[in-house]
Amino acid sequence: MHVVIVGLGLIGGSLARDLRRAGHTVTACGRDAARLAPAREQGLVDAVAEDWDSALAAAELVVLGVPVGALRETYVRIRPHVSAGTVVTDVGSTKGSVVRDIAAACGGHLPAHFVPGHPIAGTEHSGFAASVEGLFAGRRVVLTPTADTDPAAVERVSDLWRQVGAQVLTMTPQAHDAALALTSHLPQMLSYTLMGQFAEAGDGALAQLIGSGFRGMTRLAGSDPVLWRDVALANRAQLSLALHRYLERLGELAAAIDAGDEARLGKLFAAVQDAHRRLPPA
Amino acid sequence: MHVVIVGLGLIGGSLARDLRRAGHTVTACGRDAARLAPAREQGLVDAVAEDWDSALAAAELVVLGVPVGALRETYVRIRPHVSAGTVVTDVGSTKGSVVRDIAAACGGHLPAHFVPGHPIAGTEHSGFAASVEGLFAGRRVVLTPTADTDPAAVERVSDLWRQVGAQVLTMTPQAHDAALALTSHLPQMLSYTLMGQFAEAGDGALAQLIGSGFRGMTRLAGSDPVLWRDVALANRAQLSLALHRYLERLGELAAAIDAGDEARLGKLFAAVQDAHRRLPPA
Repeated sequence: MHVVIVGLGLIGGSLARDLRRAGHTVTACGRDAARLAPAREQGLVDAVAEDWDSALAAAELVVLGVPVGALRETYVRIRPHVSAGTVVTDVGSTKGSVVRDIAAACGGHLPAHFVPGHPIAGTEHSGFAASVEGLFAGRRVVLTPTADTDPAAVERVSDLWRQVGAQVLTMTPQAHDAALALTSHLPQMLSYTLMGQFAEAGDGALAQLIGSGFRGMTRLAGSDPVLWRDVALANRAQLSLALHRYLERLGELAAAIDAGDEARLGKLFAAVQDAHRRLPPA
Repeated sequence: MHVVIVGLGLIGGSLARDLRRAGHTVTACGRDAARLAPAREQGLVDAVAEDWDSALAAAELVVLGVPVGALRETYVRIRPHVSAGTVVTDVGSTKGSVVRDIAAACGGHLPAHFVPGHPIAGTEHSGFAASVEGLFAGRRVVLTPTADTDPAAVERVSDLWRQVGAQVLTMTPQAHDAALALTSHLPQMLSYTLMGQFAEAGDGALAQLIGSGFRGMTRLAGSDPVLWRDVALANRAQLSLALHRYLERLGELAAAIDAGDEARLGKLFAAVQDAHRRLPPA
């Protein structure tokens, strides 16, 4: 299959590597073709498009590997040039906003050829240099088609992700966004806030006193700030619910500590350790 | 040197392994000698004491490898049996409470032979089975002597930790507890609270949607609940300050998200990413 990937970052670049290994033809489109030359030279893509329009016309599948904040603009740019029958998908971390943005650019309905998608894979690093082979092996990819989406398009995108080792789940954009607010966007905000509080303490000696626990809890603070600003705003309603519930729970914990409530703390921590044991293996 | 380690858990067990490799004679004391038999059989200690009292009498250094909640009781148990000139140290995660507890057991003054200590090393696992060689290599150990502490005792304990590859820092118990509240105890509470919120959502499907970010942010929730209950209470005053400041900061972040304040979020996340880059390498 001829796949065009627009935006060769961590996700787009990693997908390009795996698709080529699986025998597909991959063309990369980026804002600056010169910056993508190394990807071509390293043989990670078959071509870097100098001319987006003819590359898009030849594509059977277009993957938009751009952050959610740039998705609408990118879709509007490519749409006139994709052929009938070409499927378009994205990899953004939020799905309600993607459905809204793309529908708004298309007179209110999500076009039948567009399959909203989100591979739950990645690291705190970003950009093409951070891309790796096998990033999606054993990972989940969520697709959130709507009533407007062509089932054959969903099948084409599902098949692509399965070929790079992922397991495909389908759910509504709303269910995706509520779940990811808790499993991804809230943890990101917690990590940023902890790192901010450490920086505020501003004591050079403090950096000598960090262990693996602190490093693990602040690893996500190394992530791309623009990408996460856009995700936080794109999934604002669900993230806000998760944040306010967390504030309540942490406030209750602080109150139990202030009250010296040994029994309550012991019970709470033991229950949480139990829940942690029940997580599926990584 | 003849070292007695009371409590062969993650820290005590790992220290025993390294001290034997460094040529010291290590005797383990535990509540149940039979449970420690494997340590003797695997050659990780020279002896497991059936009779604590004679083992303690022969020790030049006694390391109390028990959680902070059990420290006072353990010290009272061993004290009558250690010889004049024997140095005693601990490995507890809080230091103000240790100084208070041991002083209270000794008529109000910390005994000159007692050196409060805290190796900043460990994992979310606990117990002897989790102990490993080399746990302290390149790590920091904080000692918090008071005006009552014998400088020669501090030197003996420092030397021991250096021999297993650690770097020794000295500070007041208060400075230690304020720093660790932020770098260790607060992150632990955040991880527990996130895991608790996930468990509360109670949706089996949610477990399919976790990635490496969530796993990293909840890793600490696998830690020993009794140990952490005791740490949270032992460092209650400092932990409370850190928690309430975190609640303020997270509340401000939630407000910025609720207000859709793109500029503020972008600035905040970028500043925090910068601070993360300035952390010393692991």
